[in-house]
Amino acid sequence: MRSIDLNADLGEGFGDYTLGDDAGLMALISSANVACGFHAGDATIMARSVALAKQHGVDLGAHVGFPDLQGFGRRRMQIDPARLAHDVTYQLGALSGFARAAHYPLTHMSFHGALGNMAAEEEALARPLLQAVQAFDPALIISTTPGNAVERCARELGLHVACTFLADRAFQANGLLVPRGGAGAVIHDVEEVSRRVIDLLTTGSITAIDGTRLPMNVSSILLHGDTPGALALIARLRRDIQANGGEIRSLSQQKAR
Amino acid sequence: MRSIDLNADLGEGFGDYTLGDDAGLMALISSANVACGFHAGDATIMARSVALAKQHGVDLGAHVGFPDLQGFGRRRMQIDPARLAHDVTYQLGALSGFARAAHYPLTHMSFHGALGNMAAEEEALARPLLQAVQAFDPALIISTTPGNAVERCARELGLHVACTFLADRAFQANGLLVPRGGAGAVIHDVEEVSRRVIDLLTTGSITAIDGTRLPMNVSSILLHGDTPGALALIARLRRDIQANGGEIRSLSQQKAR
Amino acid sequence: MRSIDLNADLGEGFGDYTLGDDAGLMALISSANVACGFHAGDATIMARSVALAKQHGVDLGAHVGFPDLQGFGRRRMQIDPARLAHDVTYQLGALSGFARAAHYPLTHMSFHGALGNMAAEEEALARPLLQAVQAFDPALIISTTPGNAVERCARELGLHVACTFLADRAFQANGLLVPRGGAGAVIHDVEEVSRRVIDLLTTGSITAIDGTRLPMNVSSILLHGDTPGALALIARLRRDIQANGGEIRSLSQQKAR
Amino acid sequence: MRSIDLNADLGEGFGDYTLGDDAGLMALISSANVACGFHAGDATIMARSVALAKQHGVDLGAHVGFPDLQGFGRRRMQIDPARLAHDVTYQLGALSGFARAAHYPLTHMSFHGALGNMAAEEEALARPLLQAVQAFDPALIISTTPGNAVERCARELGLHVACTFLADRAFQANGLLVPRGGAGAVIHDVEEVSRRVIDLLTTGSITAIDGTRLPMNVSSILLHGDTPGALALIARLRRDIQANGGEIRSLSQQKAR
Repeated sequence: MRSIDLNADLGEGFGDYTLGDDAGLMALISSANVACGFHAGDATIMARSVALAKQHGVDLGAHVGFPDLQGFGRRRMQIDPARLAHDVTYQLGALSGFARAAHYPLTHMSFHGALGNMAAEEEALARPLLQAVQAFDPALIISTTPGNAVERCARELGLHVACTFLADRAFQANGLLVPRGGAGAVIHDVEEVSRRVIDLLTTGSITAIDGTRLPMNVSSILLHGDTPGALALIARLRRDIQANGGEIRSLSQQKAR
Repeated sequence: MRSIDLNADLGEGFGDYTLGDDAGLMALISSANVACGFHAGDATIMARSVALAKQHGVDLGAHVGFPDLQGFGRRRMQIDPARLAHDVTYQLGALSGFARAAHYPLTHMSFHGALGNMAAEEEALARPLLQAVQAFDPALIISTTPGNAVERCARELGLHVACTFLADRAFQANGLLVPRGGAGAVIHDVEEVSRRVIDLLTTGSITAIDGTRLPMNVSSILLHGDTPGALALIARLRRDIQANGGEIRSLSQQKAR
Repeated sequence: MRSIDLNADLGEGFGDYTLGDDAGLMALISSANVACGFHAGDATIMARSVALAKQHGVDLGAHVGFPDLQGFGRRRMQIDPARLAHDVTYQLGALSGFARAAHYPLTHMSFHGALGNMAAEEEALARPLLQAVQAFDPALIISTTPGNAVERCARELGLHVACTFLADRAFQANGLLVPRGGAGAVIHDVEEVSRRVIDLLTTGSITAIDGTRLPMNVSSILLHGDTPGALALIARLRRDIQANGGEIRSLSQQKAR
Repeated sequence: MRSIDLNADLGEGFGDYTLGDDAGLMALISSANVACGFHAGDATIMARSVALAKQHGVDLGAHVGFPDLQGFGRRRMQIDPARLAHDVTYQLGALSGFARAAHYPLTHMSFHGALGNMAAEEEALARPLLQAVQAFDPALIISTTPGNAVERCARELGLHVACTFLADRAFQANGLLVPRGGAGAVIHDVEEVSRRVIDLLTTGSITAIDGTRLPMNVSSILLHGDTPGALALIARLRRDIQANGGEIRSLSQQKAR
């Protein structure tokens, strides 16, 4: 059975505002995407997230988003790609400052929210942003859902790519997600989510919503920490994976092989 | 005659707003303090400032300030020193991201505006902020006016310190500045400013406002680019220093000796 | 037995961040202080707060703070009083925009956090801020803890003042609060808090921490909605007041008498 | 000859950053669109703009934009129209706070930059934003370029509309602007701009780029204060209009007729 990374978004509070149970999540996952102060997060939360990641040996990644705290980075913004590339460098640098101070490596990055959606759709946007990542650190792993412009451009640029699987989302036979709002788009049943993960790790494929078998080449399972019952679900997946002979291995451990 | 660094604050625009002639300044100075997006500056301006510094071989430093764009970092804020230390790390990291992408080193840092004034007055503030600098990069040079809490704490921590001389400000016999608003506090006459600089470089001392000779152990002359005639003044100083056998040497060149 | 207003701070979320149970609070209180987008709150939250206030017939007030979302307005800032007065006008105007659109009156205002503390200490700050309130709307009621510079300046200017009682805080014999951290400073026992309120409404006095009786001329009880059990406490106070023959009357109802 | 309003955007600085010569402009125009702190402007600049408008008897309007200071409101943002309508109310309220404190009326509003462009294109966006304006103050005049979704929706809602003429831009025969970058799109020659204005005021028509005569039903000429020579151009237009028997009349003066 394959090894897999358990990945979650973290550090998404701001000032006195909290969001999710970062400490609880860190004890369960193997890689974290930490907000960098643009769509969420601030310097103190970033320092704490880096300390937590180091304490638990969790891979530290930058979750890079639009400069839009009010919209949590979920509102599309038309920003000149060259300027947006600077925003990427800024966020990578800011988080790496805490990594450096903690003597703990920054291993990966991913795009958040609307920025992630726009970059996934359009190579003319994805490419300059990924070139900014590469200029900053060519060894950073790019974490992305598979089959989109981010994956394509990252591979063209020779960057390390780790594709993520959305364990609680149904897929169409063509490999695309069943859009939110569509029937059966989100899988709420814990048993079902766990079965899908074990299936994936055992066979390298999942069953699409129409029953077709769909190969899925992924390194990571993306989990959302901010839904009720999230921590229990992640703990359950962790146990089920290990009980079935699978291994939780972070992105950097997989890359190092 | 001694060598000296010519230092100026830069990159202080924001978005469409411009402030000062960064390109003009960069051609004349030997070290730049670049705003990091808190009191001024943004990602695009930082990228451009780093490119300009590299182009002219100017030392690149971080100008770290309060998170207060509206007040240009000149309004005192009572922020818990431990949290403020995180703000320091964030800003150092952000600028170092551009330095890293440009393969150009970050050499020094200084505190801006109200943060600089508060840290200069109080060791309980200066120490944790400087410890954050040290944890980020112990080789960074701390640029500060001499004789204050920042200098003392930086030396205690074993950090490299480069003291700056305010060429257009009068000093009292005790080594403190004549407060702004006091008679003769600011020296507007270009001839006089140049004479003071040559005097300093030749003798290691300046004449205080009461006529006393005052030793001044400095590595750098701090210039302000945003006043009318600033560039002409800096060009003049540059010529006068060189005509008198002095040498313009950046902070990192002086440290390397 | 006297009538009293039940007052709470509200609308303190931002974007996706929530804080407190605004809808629950609105059903229990008689006046609300709504954050205006500087230390907390945003346009959508303000619109919703105004709608809730109107729905429940709760007095609508502006909770005016420092421009510091990250610090939740709890960090002191040294801002020129004349400029800060403009920040007051801006916030009053912004909230009144929603009041106007909802055909519901803005009745009062109070200062939040560090701005409230600084204005309470210093007439040179309180006066220009209150003059800004007066220029905006001389009929607005100023809500403040009693005995400080805000109360004094507001009365001098001829503004309506409504003093608030902190029901869960112990007082010294001189009328000042026992500082947080001092023994017995915060009263956690619900029975005790309720007894103090009934005592106050029946006698117009409370018992200070040393046993002295202390007259307290207040119009309002200030409650904090963001502590666990807050809504139950407020509901309990509401019942106890009414059971003892007291009446919940908002600030504007009291003023109208 | 017709009367016309001379209109300009103003108050677009932020903190220490300045943009344009507001005092100079105010002496020449008859209506001002003042930034409200989202894409530009801050409380102090708004207070000063209102004072200047009152001093010169210039109509005071709100220039409402996206919450994007860094992009100067020129970057498109996909914000839910219902939330964006709250942002409109917030900005109208904020500026009206200064108007109220100065006992000077708010007369009109317009949409700035990317928000203006998006609302001009799409009724589904323009309508809720204009409904927010109407709920705030149904007497406000909507200032817009003619023939777009903002004009249509405003008329449907029964709002007062004042169309603006871009005196330095060429038009196509269909009434649309020649896109920026197209040959002859921007008219730089002062004589030519003046002739076009006089032609418009005399005949109610202009000559399109292909020679066709194009009727243009406008109340206002929109001028840009931030280009070099802008003030001289506006002063020239003013003189030429008056020399030809035209009259400078503000939007509210025209509406009052």
